[in-house]
Amino acid sequence: MPQMIELYGAPTGNCLRAAIALAEAGIPFVVRPVNLREGKHSEPDFLALNPAGKVPTLVDHHFTPALVINQSNAIMLYVDAKVPGLLAPAVQGPERFKVLDRYFFFVTDVIAVSHAAFFLKKIGQGEAAAPLDQRVIENLLLAEGFLTCEYMAGETFTLADISAFTLASSVTDRIPWEKVPRLKAWFERVHARPGVQSGLHAFDA
Amino acid sequence: MPQMIELYGAPTGNCLRAAIALAEAGIPFVVRPVNLREGKHSEPDFLALNPAGKVPTLVDHHFTPALVINQSNAIMLYVDAKVPGLLAPAVQGPERFKVLDRYFFFVTDVIAVSHAAFFLKKIGQGEAAAPLDQRVIENLLLAEGFLTCEYMAGETFTLADISAFTLASSVTDRIPWEKVPRLKAWFERVHARPGVQSGLHAFDA
Repeated sequence: MPQMIELYGAPTGNCLRAAIALAEAGIPFVVRPVNLREGKHSEPDFLALNPAGKVPTLVDHHFTPALVINQSNAIMLYVDAKVPGLLAPAVQGPERFKVLDRYFFFVTDVIAVSHAAFFLKKIGQGEAAAPLDQRVIENLLLAEGFLTCEYMAGETFTLADISAFTLASSVTDRIPWEKVPRLKAWFERVHARPGVQSGLHAFDA
Repeated sequence: MPQMIELYGAPTGNCLRAAIALAEAGIPFVVRPVNLREGKHSEPDFLALNPAGKVPTLVDHHFTPALVINQSNAIMLYVDAKVPGLLAPAVQGPERFKVLDRYFFFVTDVIAVSHAAFFLKKIGQGEAAAPLDQRVIENLLLAEGFLTCEYMAGETFTLADISAFTLASSVTDRIPWEKVPRLKAWFERVHARPGVQSGLHAFDA
């Protein structure tokens, strides 16, 4: 299969966002599982693709040399560019930038904060991570105010929903769902989408 | 002036990135200083524009109703869309995604980490912030390896340079410059650009 797209990864938030974006856009891709417990991300074969030794990594063999993208957000914008209009309006106008504004809120004010907390816990600084974990939930709950329509940036599913959803999925037990009925309905709506389900389970063994 | 672009902000990293992007792209804009010390970002006039009470906020009056963008990264992609090819290749191919990959490295692995550290310090958790501050520098220094050309993503100045530069500017006293000669040369090269200088001083009193 010379003209194919590979997604190297594991069931982490960053990889699931990339997989959901590809699946929602209907772009066929081959999953290349990277076993993080066995340290496969630090082995020479993988480091040749991504010197940072992180997942996900997308390889698009439609290009020569192959196009390699390592940042999950760059992969999401690649998907958006490949199927214009599906995950964000294609016209470079107000509707598109409303989606990007919401998308980056989740990227920088919610997901990035949770990554910093994760890093502190990994190095044994769980107590230091607690205020960051709390801020993740506080910021995520602001989304209750965004949900005047079906989705985070309006009537259609976009990049903003993918970012919000994978993060929300990882903290379901810490969300006071009874206080955020719109967020609850949105979460169930997104969870039920076939593309989201397909992406969520892309790395299942 | 009905057809104009306003940038509300203060001399913070997020605002400077937006101002540098606009200045580098040659897009005329009117600076609207928001005095954070006086709490102007929490007053009703500003909250009507940006309910989150944060800076920057861009308002483009070329659209009716006006286009309002609050996330600095969304503003940078707006600038990129407005002057295609100047801050990233316009063609949706490997060259563009190399730039976005680098750009998002600085956004999520360097700037976002420094924001988390800043937040912990602001709530009096300076000790908890220390490992994050250290990680900011470690990740920034990885850029020494990116600099095989003049700029972070190749031979031309891009979005990746803007992100890397404002962060590096904020930690100049903590970078071991003698160990990273390419980063040092790159920093001086970027610092000398007229567009960068113009953006850096956009919010000067």
